[in-house]
Amino acid sequence: MTTAQKSLAHPPKALAFDIFGTIVDWHSGIAAEAAAMAAKHGIRGDWNAFATAWRNGYYPAMDRVRRGELPWTLIDGLHRMILDDIADAHGFGKLDEADRAHLNHAWHRLMPWPDTVPGLLRLKRTYTISTLSNGNFSLLTDMAKHAGLPWDCIISAELFGHYKPDREAYHGCARLLGIAPGELMLVACHPSDLRGARSHGLRTAYVKRPKEEGPNGSLPAFTEGEFDLVADDFAQLAGLLHA
Amino acid sequence: MTTAQKSLAHPPKALAFDIFGTIVDWHSGIAAEAAAMAAKHGIRGDWNAFATAWRNGYYPAMDRVRRGELPWTLIDGLHRMILDDIADAHGFGKLDEADRAHLNHAWHRLMPWPDTVPGLLRLKRTYTISTLSNGNFSLLTDMAKHAGLPWDCIISAELFGHYKPDREAYHGCARLLGIAPGELMLVACHPSDLRGARSHGLRTAYVKRPKEEGPNGSLPAFTEGEFDLVADDFAQLAGLLHA
Repeated sequence: MTTAQKSLAHPPKALAFDIFGTIVDWHSGIAAEAAAMAAKHGIRGDWNAFATAWRNGYYPAMDRVRRGELPWTLIDGLHRMILDDIADAHGFGKLDEADRAHLNHAWHRLMPWPDTVPGLLRLKRTYTISTLSNGNFSLLTDMAKHAGLPWDCIISAELFGHYKPDREAYHGCARLLGIAPGELMLVACHPSDLRGARSHGLRTAYVKRPKEEGPNGSLPAFTEGEFDLVADDFAQLAGLLHA
Repeated sequence: MTTAQKSLAHPPKALAFDIFGTIVDWHSGIAAEAAAMAAKHGIRGDWNAFATAWRNGYYPAMDRVRRGELPWTLIDGLHRMILDDIADAHGFGKLDEADRAHLNHAWHRLMPWPDTVPGLLRLKRTYTISTLSNGNFSLLTDMAKHAGLPWDCIISAELFGHYKPDREAYHGCARLLGIAPGELMLVACHPSDLRGARSHGLRTAYVKRPKEEGPNGSLPAFTEGEFDLVADDFAQLAGLLHA
């Protein structure tokens, strides 16, 4: 309770949420869309493994952009590059352009965890709630419309030309909201993202998402006291934030 | 009906809305906040004239930014410069910093026309609906929260470092939404804004707001056929767009 009380003595003015894993269940969503695409073509495969493989390409691809090895590329483009790389190995080698474009858009159609929307609606009464995702702006806007996510605004790394954990993404989010970095709290299920936010002056809330990686996943390691708040789900987070 | 039918044959994919005047009633809102501030200090004055004077400084200030005579400055900053310029003439010369900051934030607290929210809720079922305003991002986000505006996303000239009617603002809005300029329709009550949008390839819908300028206002002139759609209010607009 120590960290919670410390945080509540100076509540943040706004909350920024990581999206993939924190808000939506990418593993189930991608596996289900891949299975549907495969069924249409009579392809057999392991769609949990496919979802994991697609996501495994995500951080290395962004890091290539962050290091300057690739020019600025939206997540839609990076997802497509990874899909094209792994298609053969998962039986999708013969998918045509229309099918690949449809499957790539599955990331726009991901659905929230059961506690996500009720928690956001509670938090929205007290705080400004925004996305802060490496997903591109149209992906986040489409997802919000499809999944009924009640954001006050959409903020994407695309607006800054820098992916998290670059400083520009965290500080850019606070600047657009008209507040100081220390008045903004990042909510995420990835310690690496939270560590980036903390190192650039943001408040941090870690939410556990044990099913993020699918049936074979495990929770990432972190140190007690490393983040301002730790919650099992969005209902508990809303309680800790007095929303 | 000719222009409406032409438009409906190829409906836009998204609608971007001008804000001041089109969505919210700035004249009444600013006059009322000024009157409340004046009452607190026992100041007498003509608050309709004050609202008009404040707004009259708006386009010249943005044009100074657009011509490069001022560095990029958010609308909050331009509004404050204009307020400081006109304060003496309207009896507000002795307002302290806190009162000036509060009054400047009145633009974040403006309220919608009666038909705005019902119309947006109808349009949102069929279209992605965004702001496209010269107001800064936090102003638009605060306003949406305060006034209950159901945007899918907030897009501001701030994101492009260019005020409308610069091309960058119109094309930047379409790019963030992941669509072509010709798939985006600007909805506005100002022919000058619509002409800018049209010249850069956007579709256009003119909505009449006869009370925008307050009790002494009049409707701006435009040519029949100049815009894709012309509507008396948001209910008629939603009908023309089959929403």
